[in-house]
Amino acid sequence: MHQQSDSLGRAAFMPVAPSEGALRPLGIDSVRITGGFWGHRQQLNREAIIPHALKWETKVGWIDNFVHAAVGDVAGHRQGREFSDSDVYKLIESMAWEVGRTDDPELDAEIERLGTLIEACQCDDGYLSTRFGNPGQEPRYSDFAWGHELYCYGHLIQAAIARMRTGYQGTIVRVALRVAEHLLATFGEDGRDDICGHPEIEVALAELSRVTGDPRYLEQARIFLDRRGNGILPDIEFGRAYYQDDEPFRDSTILRGHCVRALYLCAAAVDIAVEQGDAGLLRVAQKQYDAILARRTYITGGMGSHHQDEAFGDDFEMPPDRSYCETCAGIGSIMVAWRLLLATGELGYGDIIERTLYNIVATSPSAQGNAFFYANTLHRRTPAAQSTVDEALPRASSSLRAPWFEVSCCPTNVARTFASLAGLLATSSDEGVQLVQYASAELAVDLASGCVRLSVETNYPDDGRVLISVAEAPGAFVLDLRIPGWAQGAMVDGHAVSPGTHRIEGVTVGRTISLQLPLEPRRTLPDSRIDAVRGTVAVERGPLVLCSESVDLPDGIGIDGYEIEPGAQPRADGDTGAVIAARLITHENAAWPYGAAGAGAGAGAGRGDAIDVPLAPYYAWGNRGPTTMRVWLPELGADVTTR
Amino acid sequence: MHQQSDSLGRAAFMPVAPSEGALRPLGIDSVRITGGFWGHRQQLNREAIIPHALKWETKVGWIDNFVHAAVGDVAGHRQGREFSDSDVYKLIESMAWEVGRTDDPELDAEIERLGTLIEACQCDDGYLSTRFGNPGQEPRYSDFAWGHELYCYGHLIQAAIARMRTGYQGTIVRVALRVAEHLLATFGEDGRDDICGHPEIEVALAELSRVTGDPRYLEQARIFLDRRGNGILPDIEFGRAYYQDDEPFRDSTILRGHCVRALYLCAAAVDIAVEQGDAGLLRVAQKQYDAILARRTYITGGMGSHHQDEAFGDDFEMPPDRSYCETCAGIGSIMVAWRLLLATGELGYGDIIERTLYNIVATSPSAQGNAFFYANTLHRRTPAAQSTVDEALPRASSSLRAPWFEVSCCPTNVARTFASLAGLLATSSDEGVQLVQYASAELAVDLASGCVRLSVETNYPDDGRVLISVAEAPGAFVLDLRIPGWAQGAMVDGHAVSPGTHRIEGVTVGRTISLQLPLEPRRTLPDSRIDAVRGTVAVERGPLVLCSESVDLPDGIGIDGYEIEPGAQPRADGDTGAVIAARLITHENAAWPYGAAGAGAGAGAGRGDAIDVPLAPYYAWGNRGPTTMRVWLPELGADVTTR
Repeated sequence: MHQQSDSLGRAAFMPVAPSEGALRPLGIDSVRITGGFWGHRQQLNREAIIPHALKWETKVGWIDNFVHAAVGDVAGHRQGREFSDSDVYKLIESMAWEVGRTDDPELDAEIERLGTLIEACQCDDGYLSTRFGNPGQEPRYSDFAWGHELYCYGHLIQAAIARMRTGYQGTIVRVALRVAEHLLATFGEDGRDDICGHPEIEVALAELSRVTGDPRYLEQARIFLDRRGNGILPDIEFGRAYYQDDEPFRDSTILRGHCVRALYLCAAAVDIAVEQGDAGLLRVAQKQYDAILARRTYITGGMGSHHQDEAFGDDFEMPPDRSYCETCAGIGSIMVAWRLLLATGELGYGDIIERTLYNIVATSPSAQGNAFFYANTLHRRTPAAQSTVDEALPRASSSLRAPWFEVSCCPTNVARTFASLAGLLATSSDEGVQLVQYASAELAVDLASGCVRLSVETNYPDDGRVLISVAEAPGAFVLDLRIPGWAQGAMVDGHAVSPGTHRIEGVTVGRTISLQLPLEPRRTLPDSRIDAVRGTVAVERGPLVLCSESVDLPDGIGIDGYEIEPGAQPRADGDTGAVIAARLITHENAAWPYGAAGAGAGAGAGRGDAIDVPLAPYYAWGNRGPTTMRVWLPELGADVTTR
Repeated sequence: MHQQSDSLGRAAFMPVAPSEGALRPLGIDSVRITGGFWGHRQQLNREAIIPHALKWETKVGWIDNFVHAAVGDVAGHRQGREFSDSDVYKLIESMAWEVGRTDDPELDAEIERLGTLIEACQCDDGYLSTRFGNPGQEPRYSDFAWGHELYCYGHLIQAAIARMRTGYQGTIVRVALRVAEHLLATFGEDGRDDICGHPEIEVALAELSRVTGDPRYLEQARIFLDRRGNGILPDIEFGRAYYQDDEPFRDSTILRGHCVRALYLCAAAVDIAVEQGDAGLLRVAQKQYDAILARRTYITGGMGSHHQDEAFGDDFEMPPDRSYCETCAGIGSIMVAWRLLLATGELGYGDIIERTLYNIVATSPSAQGNAFFYANTLHRRTPAAQSTVDEALPRASSSLRAPWFEVSCCPTNVARTFASLAGLLATSSDEGVQLVQYASAELAVDLASGCVRLSVETNYPDDGRVLISVAEAPGAFVLDLRIPGWAQGAMVDGHAVSPGTHRIEGVTVGRTISLQLPLEPRRTLPDSRIDAVRGTVAVERGPLVLCSESVDLPDGIGIDGYEIEPGAQPRADGDTGAVIAARLITHENAAWPYGAAGAGAGAGAGRGDAIDVPLAPYYAWGNRGPTTMRVWLPELGADVTTR
């Protein structure tokens, strides 16, 4: 039995609901996070992030754009970039999942209020934009490369899907369905031969088809996918690869260009492949994403080393000090990985989801939930004061958390991910239940034989112990546990298990299973082709990448002030931190920083005192005032002489 | 006696002519390059680069913009970016130096033809632009941040200065002087409080003051310099540091933001300091530039690791695979270094000029002079076919040579530098002559006591032997030789000399001096704070940085296919190349490229056969078809196991 929605009715509360696939997702009505790391973030999202986003979208005028469009004077009053509508839609989607999770009547009313504003400026034929087509503006569809109209539609439809999946209807659903009909009429097989410069409509239409049961939306998604890659969009400075219009998706071997664009498109390809039973397309998508994981992903799960075009670099081109790693790319990567996990049944995709959740998505918001990283650098060389919460920063590529950005896609993307996060914790199959992420949670899973109720208790990732209790079961069922790739030495009920999927057969009511994940800090080396981190070591602990911040070092010592001892092993420090043995380094400030070793031409550095360098989770960095930071720690080499 | 121009008359043929300073420049009428490396490039410039630039500026419509502006219909016909006028002016400047060098009547006529087109669209009050102020266009001076009107004026004035300095007048001089009067009337101390988003007008006005003897232009340059840094221009995505409007120049400690902008402004600051006797300003400029050399300059002399804003990175943030190193930034760096050399008498600034000339300026044009690097990467990971000579590339940040760019500042910057290059070879002082760069040349230097004629013969940098013969001298004079910082073991007349300035007193007619510069390839290590090149080695030979190209490696071996033996010393190969001992490396293609060493998680690589890796001059790379390339060579480390 699939958790498929029955047309528009209340059904699975899940962000992604394929009708086919090896594994079935569980809705957020079936999985409830009850506390811990992610429970805290769901609370932060509800209490801080969503209100913060609403405040800022109001303050910067993006919501008022709809008001102005309705009365016809938006041309003179419009605020924000061409895609600002989409951020209002993403905020509504966040609210919708939050209402689904908590039944909050105030948030529900807020969604309806916003929906009413939006509906008031929808054209009779369904077209909707505050940026184009209104009096005094450029005509609709006059700039497919940069106009983002279909991208905005995609997020509007996702908001409506979140409403439908959580059992609500209302204005935003009505608006989105009219937009969808307009899309079919305009861009169908016999319609205009155009695509949007930013993929997103494809994944939205595929989901809309699932939630409504209407195959026309799915087919429109496929049309957009296959139309792309034939040079429909103009050639631009970055080349058509920037928006994946250089080569048809089905002919491509690796994701390329703008990371978020590429990942959203890949997610749609998986959806289309699954729904249309297109095994070839699924293989192509999987191969492209797997290639990215093997050759173009930072240790944090971040993607993109090009700031200029927010793009993947070449294979192994991942300098930490020029890492871009946009928060939204992390979310796009999770979208793809989750779909591949469902389609293929490979729980291993949960590894990259976990890594990206902890080290990108959780890193973006500040501890107070009122400022965000857009880019997630792995190396910050200059301390900078934390930005105030009162000022929007235009510099989205900064590695400072800022309360809002001119391009502010990330905060609402984090919000919708947090609000629907429970949907990523587990799956079901004909045989039983698969636990993919470990968090304190209550699960109610409808199997063919009846309902299984599980309770998961854990302080993971602060503690490696996970207790899974079976409160209800119709009989024996299979429980699959994802053992992360790094978890050498994991144990289930006291017995060592290997990384991968650990299957427990014959699980019945009353059984308690104990999983112990090894959280000793570990020393991680990069592939030697990642040239920029040659001679350095990262320290990880469980799913957490650790980092060194100058605020944790003695006064006057920056993160370039030490190198770790050769072969040094990190030691645990507290629940999530570590320390590692290092030597202070004194640098010679030469007029020219290149020369023969030891010739005094700048290459040399002298060793000083021994020091234990404290390391802390990367997700928490930058929350304690101005600091420098690095993930990859240099290891003392032969070029450093003892003085 | 200074080689100062007598108002508008024929005088010193030199790009820079300070009225004060420790050393005096020599004009291109005093120094003639007679062959060798730079003689070849001057010939290439004359026969290929300048005609190529004229062909392209015609083809892409930038010259026709002036024709349209004259008849009033440019709004509907304009081609190119907002600053395209400047590239026409830079082309004229190149031609002007070339006419000064060769008295070519056809080029002279071409300059006059272009000048006439330009003059036809100059407004009565001196204003001139094909981009603003014409019917149907935005009003003049409506966008100081991005409009580039004053930047264009600067290059127009530089073209006029080149004409005046080479003894010509004509239309372009008349046009430029009218523009200059317009500038004084509009932007003077009591005029509008604006500055241009791209510095350039400052350095042009300072030189115009020198060539005309009119101090008002110098004062206007100072006004622009001191007005800057007070937040006059709008805040933008990259911050006001992008165009150096974040902090007054006199308060700054390091160049920052867009490299070309920062360097052009710094050059102007030196000019203003020298002409106004402002020792404090000179110290500030020198300190800022010296800081850049010590902390933000690539081994090639290239500057800028940020593609997005074409900016310097933080200190030591110089990943080779994200190096930008715009050709124009190299030229801007030479402009600053040359001015500092003249002002301070420190011949050591000739080191960075030499390094940048060979490894940036000479690298930009293809061997045929019909395609150019805009960016000069130190690491190219993917082979790409050389672009055709028929197609302009919009992608100025590519590491492919292209015949033309949408932003095509670099080709004409190279052209004007090559045409006026003789002016950078030597200087004079009251005591005698200083040889700064070594090239086959004839010099005629007017000292107070009379004329010194020198002949320099050399095949440098293919050969380290430089013969300097004194053909004429009024008596004994002093000859200073710049011994490059890398030249440990240099000899003069068979005696070892140290890097720095080597002074030879009492030089008289008939004397021949033999300088021997050591050109053995040498192993160079980076400052350990340049994290991205940790564990790697560069090989240099004389002033040349060498590199490894995959076209020189066995079939199927890329530049990531070997690592050099620990401590390997390069050996000479031919006149300019080298070989270095290495081992082939086999990489394990893991699904995830991070893991414990030797744990099979992607970090490991296996050693294979020994191989001698050929290295060739960086300036010549990319001339032999698709290739990958790297300057910094990885050295085998402990993480690589022998298999």
